[in-house]
Amino acid sequence: MSQLPREFALIERYFRPLAGPAALGLADDVALLRPPAGTDLVLSADAMVAGVHFLPDDPPDLVARKLLRVNLSDLAAKGAAPLGYLFTIAAPAGTDDAWFAAFTAGLAQDQKDFGLSLLGGDSVATPGPLSLSLTILGTVAPGRAVLRRGAAAGHGVFVSGTIGDAALGLEVLQGRLADPSGFLAQRYRLPEPRLGLELADFAAAAMDISDGLVQDLGHLCRAGGVAAAIDAAAVPLSAAAAAAGPDWLARRLTGGDDYELLLAVPPEAESRLAAAASRLGVPLTRIGRFMPGPPEVSVSAPDGAPMIFSRPGWSHF
Amino acid sequence: MSQLPREFALIERYFRPLAGPAALGLADDVALLRPPAGTDLVLSADAMVAGVHFLPDDPPDLVARKLLRVNLSDLAAKGAAPLGYLFTIAAPAGTDDAWFAAFTAGLAQDQKDFGLSLLGGDSVATPGPLSLSLTILGTVAPGRAVLRRGAAAGHGVFVSGTIGDAALGLEVLQGRLADPSGFLAQRYRLPEPRLGLELADFAAAAMDISDGLVQDLGHLCRAGGVAAAIDAAAVPLSAAAAAAGPDWLARRLTGGDDYELLLAVPPEAESRLAAAASRLGVPLTRIGRFMPGPPEVSVSAPDGAPMIFSRPGWSHF
Repeated sequence: MSQLPREFALIERYFRPLAGPAALGLADDVALLRPPAGTDLVLSADAMVAGVHFLPDDPPDLVARKLLRVNLSDLAAKGAAPLGYLFTIAAPAGTDDAWFAAFTAGLAQDQKDFGLSLLGGDSVATPGPLSLSLTILGTVAPGRAVLRRGAAAGHGVFVSGTIGDAALGLEVLQGRLADPSGFLAQRYRLPEPRLGLELADFAAAAMDISDGLVQDLGHLCRAGGVAAAIDAAAVPLSAAAAAAGPDWLARRLTGGDDYELLLAVPPEAESRLAAAASRLGVPLTRIGRFMPGPPEVSVSAPDGAPMIFSRPGWSHF
Repeated sequence: MSQLPREFALIERYFRPLAGPAALGLADDVALLRPPAGTDLVLSADAMVAGVHFLPDDPPDLVARKLLRVNLSDLAAKGAAPLGYLFTIAAPAGTDDAWFAAFTAGLAQDQKDFGLSLLGGDSVATPGPLSLSLTILGTVAPGRAVLRRGAAAGHGVFVSGTIGDAALGLEVLQGRLADPSGFLAQRYRLPEPRLGLELADFAAAAMDISDGLVQDLGHLCRAGGVAAAIDAAAVPLSAAAAAAGPDWLARRLTGGDDYELLLAVPPEAESRLAAAASRLGVPLTRIGRFMPGPPEVSVSAPDGAPMIFSRPGWSHF
């Protein structure tokens, strides 16, 4: 018993330094957490698989930070603050210590930047590709979580940041598009969760855009029982995406991995939105409106013609 | 947008019926949970991969129930009660509806039997084997969780149920052992989480046995800073395991998947333990004792000789 099996050595060396007090040093079966009084818990889980959600040769620290950030983005989209996370890793048998060192260094960096800690998890071997799963816990004041339902006719459709960078970044990484600055690839590899906005002050409904703007806006429409019309020319784009040219417009509107906010905002709340956006330095842009009708999304091209998409976003299976 | 992509159709058809109120109908990015007042949250996460934790042709409903039960077993080992769970599934692209129907039917059955509901999750495609990850939430009265640390010299080593059935069950399923009754294979496929015991009434330390009795007892020793000695002849075995014969003794003591309780019990608490065991009909058996010394486990064979194991239990990597 003097020589610990490698599974436990990995936990002690790489994962234990990430653990917060509730994790019991990762030396128990569980984490034990007294939730902060007077808050609601917000919970979300996302899985990522090598070759599906990231490229097998992506740097391990960026894979780790993306895993954490796609979940942080779910909290951000509810106006919640991060508390902690559990994650499981199914790693190919040949995964070496250098990989674990880089992966956990990425987690350590983002834990510090976003104010949360590891609560627990599990590490197992797989004969398949690296598979990751992360469950995040956040807190929000009671009644202050902004849900997907709530969009109503007359509300504006708003997005944060710029849209389509990550989808183009994947094209870059797959050799189909040039990206001299590296900006687009970085946007694919490292989402920016839009934490810190008091969404309940101005948004009637919210979600994060992970599977493509048009498809995700359809979710807000279904949840609210409304239609939406957006203007492609109004959808904010980065300089790097603009440089890619107009041929990539449809890809930008339907590609995944934006992890920007998608909001329904009543007209009377727009001034509060503008104040909040300015305070945090997060660009929030009106790209269309919700209106009565069946839960469908219509998109006007820059020339005013309706755009038709072969698929509105990403779907597994 | 009228035809939902299959990912969302699967969620609506198979996963939504499992969702409790906090899951927001699985139609949001998150679950929203107000934790019961005056309780601590207990959290655990486990991953399972086809071909590693279960056999690729195991019935999907049993795979689902095992996934839930290995996590329920972690709650049981702390004296906690189930509250809810999130899970992620990475499924090979060809996974058909019948598989999802059977898998979720298994979850539905055990949700009902154990009193918890689905909070959220994620379903993605993988080019590799089916990979599952589940995070469970439970509750326990403040200060009443029984941790791994706490074993002291003089405490008895107790286990619930019978030990080694699942390890032999795997041998059966791999064709190396006969099992006319099917009992051993069933024990491998469907653990019995030992929920409902007020462990804090009588146990000073507790964990569940998932990676082999000898290895897991080593964890209790390290957490408590004590040694342990157990008597192989005292380790309870089922009739089916007994029928396999003495050649399988070492396998029974070091094989995984028991999901029975492993407890450190002070002598003065043994009468309370006996009363609780009898009330719930859970057999609890004394198999040895903790004693001063380095955190090592010694095992006496039925003939009194010390047993040496090539490996004390299961380790990934």
